[in-house]
Amino acid sequence: MTEIRPSLSAEIVQRVDELAAISEAPDNLTRVFLSKELRAAADLLMAWMREAGMSAHMDAIGNVCGRYEGTVPGLPCLMLGSHYDTVRDAGKWDGPLGIVAAIACVGDLHRRSVRLPFVVEIVAFADEEGTRFASTLLGSRAVAGTFVETALASRDKDGVSMRDAMVGFGLDPARLSNAARKASDVLAYLELHIEQGPVLEAEALPVGVVTAIAGATRLAVELRGMAGHAGTVPMALRRDALAGAAECIVAVETLCRADQGGLVGTVGVIHAAPGAGNVIPGLTSFTLDIRAPTDDHRIGAVAEIRRTVEAIAARRGLALQIDVTHENRTAPCAPWLQDQIGDAIAAEGHRVFTLPSGAGHDGMAMIDIADIAMLFVRCRGGISHHPAEHVDEADVDASARVLLRVIEHFKPKE
Amino acid sequence: MTEIRPSLSAEIVQRVDELAAISEAPDNLTRVFLSKELRAAADLLMAWMREAGMSAHMDAIGNVCGRYEGTVPGLPCLMLGSHYDTVRDAGKWDGPLGIVAAIACVGDLHRRSVRLPFVVEIVAFADEEGTRFASTLLGSRAVAGTFVETALASRDKDGVSMRDAMVGFGLDPARLSNAARKASDVLAYLELHIEQGPVLEAEALPVGVVTAIAGATRLAVELRGMAGHAGTVPMALRRDALAGAAECIVAVETLCRADQGGLVGTVGVIHAAPGAGNVIPGLTSFTLDIRAPTDDHRIGAVAEIRRTVEAIAARRGLALQIDVTHENRTAPCAPWLQDQIGDAIAAEGHRVFTLPSGAGHDGMAMIDIADIAMLFVRCRGGISHHPAEHVDEADVDASARVLLRVIEHFKPKE
Repeated sequence: MTEIRPSLSAEIVQRVDELAAISEAPDNLTRVFLSKELRAAADLLMAWMREAGMSAHMDAIGNVCGRYEGTVPGLPCLMLGSHYDTVRDAGKWDGPLGIVAAIACVGDLHRRSVRLPFVVEIVAFADEEGTRFASTLLGSRAVAGTFVETALASRDKDGVSMRDAMVGFGLDPARLSNAARKASDVLAYLELHIEQGPVLEAEALPVGVVTAIAGATRLAVELRGMAGHAGTVPMALRRDALAGAAECIVAVETLCRADQGGLVGTVGVIHAAPGAGNVIPGLTSFTLDIRAPTDDHRIGAVAEIRRTVEAIAARRGLALQIDVTHENRTAPCAPWLQDQIGDAIAAEGHRVFTLPSGAGHDGMAMIDIADIAMLFVRCRGGISHHPAEHVDEADVDASARVLLRVIEHFKPKE
Repeated sequence: MTEIRPSLSAEIVQRVDELAAISEAPDNLTRVFLSKELRAAADLLMAWMREAGMSAHMDAIGNVCGRYEGTVPGLPCLMLGSHYDTVRDAGKWDGPLGIVAAIACVGDLHRRSVRLPFVVEIVAFADEEGTRFASTLLGSRAVAGTFVETALASRDKDGVSMRDAMVGFGLDPARLSNAARKASDVLAYLELHIEQGPVLEAEALPVGVVTAIAGATRLAVELRGMAGHAGTVPMALRRDALAGAAECIVAVETLCRADQGGLVGTVGVIHAAPGAGNVIPGLTSFTLDIRAPTDDHRIGAVAEIRRTVEAIAARRGLALQIDVTHENRTAPCAPWLQDQIGDAIAAEGHRVFTLPSGAGHDGMAMIDIADIAMLFVRCRGGISHHPAEHVDEADVDASARVLLRVIEHFKPKE
């Protein structure tokens, strides 16, 4: 019954390419919230949705919503979705794959005249990446009813406010709340997305079941010692802020490596001042990004890392400042949904493998009104947010087959 | 016999202040090679030298040379010196103290009509810091006959060549070699200079005898791993270039700390790319400055550090490149001169303490034509190359007394 014909995965790949051609930059893919390129992509998505037998409209924040009715009118929906905005100089699969794969599945149902005892709704979110304005997840927050109106005052790099951009896009900021859905109308939220990491590739699997979208804590750490001449200050009299930072970085790595529960810690930015080859750094600052599959795990790890960094700073006579710059709670995927995805993966002949998502996704917002789940698709080298981002067509096919099987066999939570 | 009257240290401090007022910048001290400020300072120095009973002239590179004749004409000299150029936003003691203290000592001899069985010559070097052009030690290299003529083609930040600057200063580049001295004319080169480090302060001593001007090796290290998403790449699958660099920095520090022979190692500059809080750094570069009191020691340490860094890179799967960007050999201070300085220090009632100089000095060039020695003076907090650079007047007095005693008791090597 669930068979993706060869033409479907070809269609998905072709549509990902078509969307990738809609960019503000001539030589790379950049499509941001409320841009004319986003509008062009929305028109294309609505056309494809209608071709797949769905009604389609743009909601109050710019999300594109397609609705495939069930056996009778007025049923609640299984919501499928992903985002159609991109980072700057993006890969083409991050977001669009989940949308066009869902459209392909509905198109397959439509061609076979299959109607289900629930609505299948597809939402293409207008802003997940937060490339243009400071905030992320704007599209899904609007749907979840958690959009914070003060965000309308934020401005892009050209000084344009989100409010003005919205008006220019043809939307009415006063009606933003119309985008919100009721929890009773959404049976579940399910997203197909590339993994953006190397785990499935290492496991030699095309797809995986996500257990949770990991929460994240970001810290800004500053160590202040004493600058000095690289030749004249003996080792024992130094208060080298960079050497202290290096010890912290090694300690964080050691702590995360020893963890068996999926904890990851990353120092992505470091600055040492004054920054001359013959001067001992008196000041060093670095960022620290900590993620784990559960909040308790992450919060415990952050506390342990704080204690470790404090001890290093105290022992070295360095003044320490740690600020929390960002904190996101974990969004666990519902076990009942994970089970249905696992069943579909097994039915398609693949080993069922579960993994956390370290990256953020729209499910983090959608969890406020629905149980959520995610199906991850292998991407080459784990590379994402880069033009080299790539998914093999065979994996597109495998993931679309699983998604279609999940849809057709979907049973709402009892 | 050797008594610095109270007015002498006051005179030294006052003259250091007078020189500090001659700057190209209104609110900080910056006096560079071949500038009109250098010319003004030179005129002042020559006036002070003549007042101290010396003949004075400017040599072919801009050094100011003062000569206090001995008991009979045509004797070789004990050469005293330091530099009168500065870094940008400099402290006022680095260089000038050694010149004006030497002038004060000769002035004292002159007032007492003391003639010695050798000439006392004072050379104020026109460029030690290398602030204006790429090369350092230009003044002392000219005196040692090791000035490399190709340096004349180098240009300052405004595009002015050293050759043109020299002509504008009133010097003839074709006659540069006239600045060179013969080894047979110089009995020894002795420099009084602030320590620029915290060791004498930690020892609670006003002065110290330098054992050697440490050689330095500077390396540029680059580690290349694999950038990735901070949330999606498990610790075990990472090739984090910054974590690798951090391990190297800690290893270098540990190795230098364990050394009992004055080895110092400094990482002053670090860059991690791409440099975002949520991206694992794929590329990290850093500088490494290694110094030790002997060349063998430094060369051995550099080799050990290379092996350590190579092992860290190999274990982590990081591509490694190490380039030597700078290498200076050690300039040992002559033991017979160290002994005479030590005797003078003891006679002045201070504990005789020896230490290496981690910073470079004109002695590194002068050693090519003479045995060299240095007398270090305590500076507050070890701070130098900074407006906060400070020497207590009591230490000025102590160091000038020692210098005068060395001069009066000086015995050439037999």
